[in-house]
Amino acid sequence: MKFRGFIFDLDGTVYRGEELIPGADAAIARLKNAGGRVVFLSNKPLQTREAYAEKLTRLGISTSPAEVVNSSFVMTRYLAKLAPGAVVFALGEAPFLEELARAGFTLSEDPERIRWVIAAFDRTFDYRKLNIAFQAIKRGAHFVATNPDRTCPVEGGEIPDCAAVIAALEAVTQKKVEVIVGKPSPVIMEVALEVLGIPAAECLLIGDRIETDIRMGKEAHMATALVLSGVSTAAMAAKSELQPDYILPSIAAIIRDSALFTYE
Amino acid sequence: MKFRGFIFDLDGTVYRGEELIPGADAAIARLKNAGGRVVFLSNKPLQTREAYAEKLTRLGISTSPAEVVNSSFVMTRYLAKLAPGAVVFALGEAPFLEELARAGFTLSEDPERIRWVIAAFDRTFDYRKLNIAFQAIKRGAHFVATNPDRTCPVEGGEIPDCAAVIAALEAVTQKKVEVIVGKPSPVIMEVALEVLGIPAAECLLIGDRIETDIRMGKEAHMATALVLSGVSTAAMAAKSELQPDYILPSIAAIIRDSALFTYE
Repeated sequence: MKFRGFIFDLDGTVYRGEELIPGADAAIARLKNAGGRVVFLSNKPLQTREAYAEKLTRLGISTSPAEVVNSSFVMTRYLAKLAPGAVVFALGEAPFLEELARAGFTLSEDPERIRWVIAAFDRTFDYRKLNIAFQAIKRGAHFVATNPDRTCPVEGGEIPDCAAVIAALEAVTQKKVEVIVGKPSPVIMEVALEVLGIPAAECLLIGDRIETDIRMGKEAHMATALVLSGVSTAAMAAKSELQPDYILPSIAAIIRDSALFTYE
Repeated sequence: MKFRGFIFDLDGTVYRGEELIPGADAAIARLKNAGGRVVFLSNKPLQTREAYAEKLTRLGISTSPAEVVNSSFVMTRYLAKLAPGAVVFALGEAPFLEELARAGFTLSEDPERIRWVIAAFDRTFDYRKLNIAFQAIKRGAHFVATNPDRTCPVEGGEIPDCAAVIAALEAVTQKKVEVIVGKPSPVIMEVALEVLGIPAAECLLIGDRIETDIRMGKEAHMATALVLSGVSTAAMAAKSELQPDYILPSIAAIIRDSALFTYE
């Protein structure tokens, strides 16, 4: 094989909602059988890595939690390096809060004690949390966020995502969020490469969005493959200043493409 | 008297929290006895005009609800002209929702029916409301707001105000709020002048903030008096491009200033 590591976007690349992209299971099994290592990326901080691994396994792609990198995991790992055991307050849902607690952080709602405020995609966001975060940031707490997404696609439409929480906090604190760790941040790429244990030069990033996935891969000096099973089209790719190394109809084509899979 | 109508800011001008600025009661009684008409402005959409009149009366300034203009009243009146009886959804507290209902608007949480989304200072703001507002604006509902304030002063500090709600909605809808009716908007000045029934040329605006109160008075072609009992100082006034017509130590000085009260 031309590459040893494969970094996959999930929605639009591996599955669409609850439906596997046809051939995704066979393609990934083939890469793994040939010695390739894979990691799956998601910007959603709503579930743990375990939950994503279960979903992929249920859909036919046998996956371990160690092969999943989502934005809550990236945030937990990022903070564990910068401020292990710090007192944090997350505008997030229960699984994320549990993940932080398991990683040794102290969760607090006391603005005098909080050192890090973490904005996340949070369907339990409310005025009380907004005020705690505001008071903490006013007293000097750091202000970071899991993912920059404006909305999250759901059955039949979309719902407000992390960008709404970030914007509310920026407006009231008059401070800009210091870092957003999810795609297209270099932070999530660093964690993905650490998890793979393979240098960027030997990895391929596969995603369906030119402006986020392909941009992020290029900024990490990594080869990129655009799949046309999601948001971006061939016409969009032709017009973009960001040229992926490969354009494939879908993930299934990875094992048919001789440039990617040279021993076939 | 040089003026027939007097438009007063409240917090910092007439009272500070629960405490009357010394001499405010006597000054306002004197203006009224001499035939002056007064109106009190507030950006807070949390209470009805009745509640503000009660508070002022309790503090020693006998006030009728008709002499109060706050941002929920301005919004109700603004929409009553533009879209009487419209289906609205307000991110606001109970007294504001009741005020809208009394004014003949239909309150709805159904994004398919909502024609106007009203962002307000709302200590009951939550994700559910954010999502309803987002879905309605996405389907073409108008997006308006009561007041632009970032925070609201409270005992011992400040809490998030309407700006946080506006920012969250702007971020998720990618649409800018169409109008904000509270200070320093010309809309609240128009309503104040209507309530007074006196032309702007014969009115004096009295407030403690150069950047909002004095700016708004000048834009309405009205004489302005800055009182130094609140936020802005004489030094700030000296440096500002906005020059008030009068600078007074406090509201009490109105009845001592011969230019304002010529018959003394």
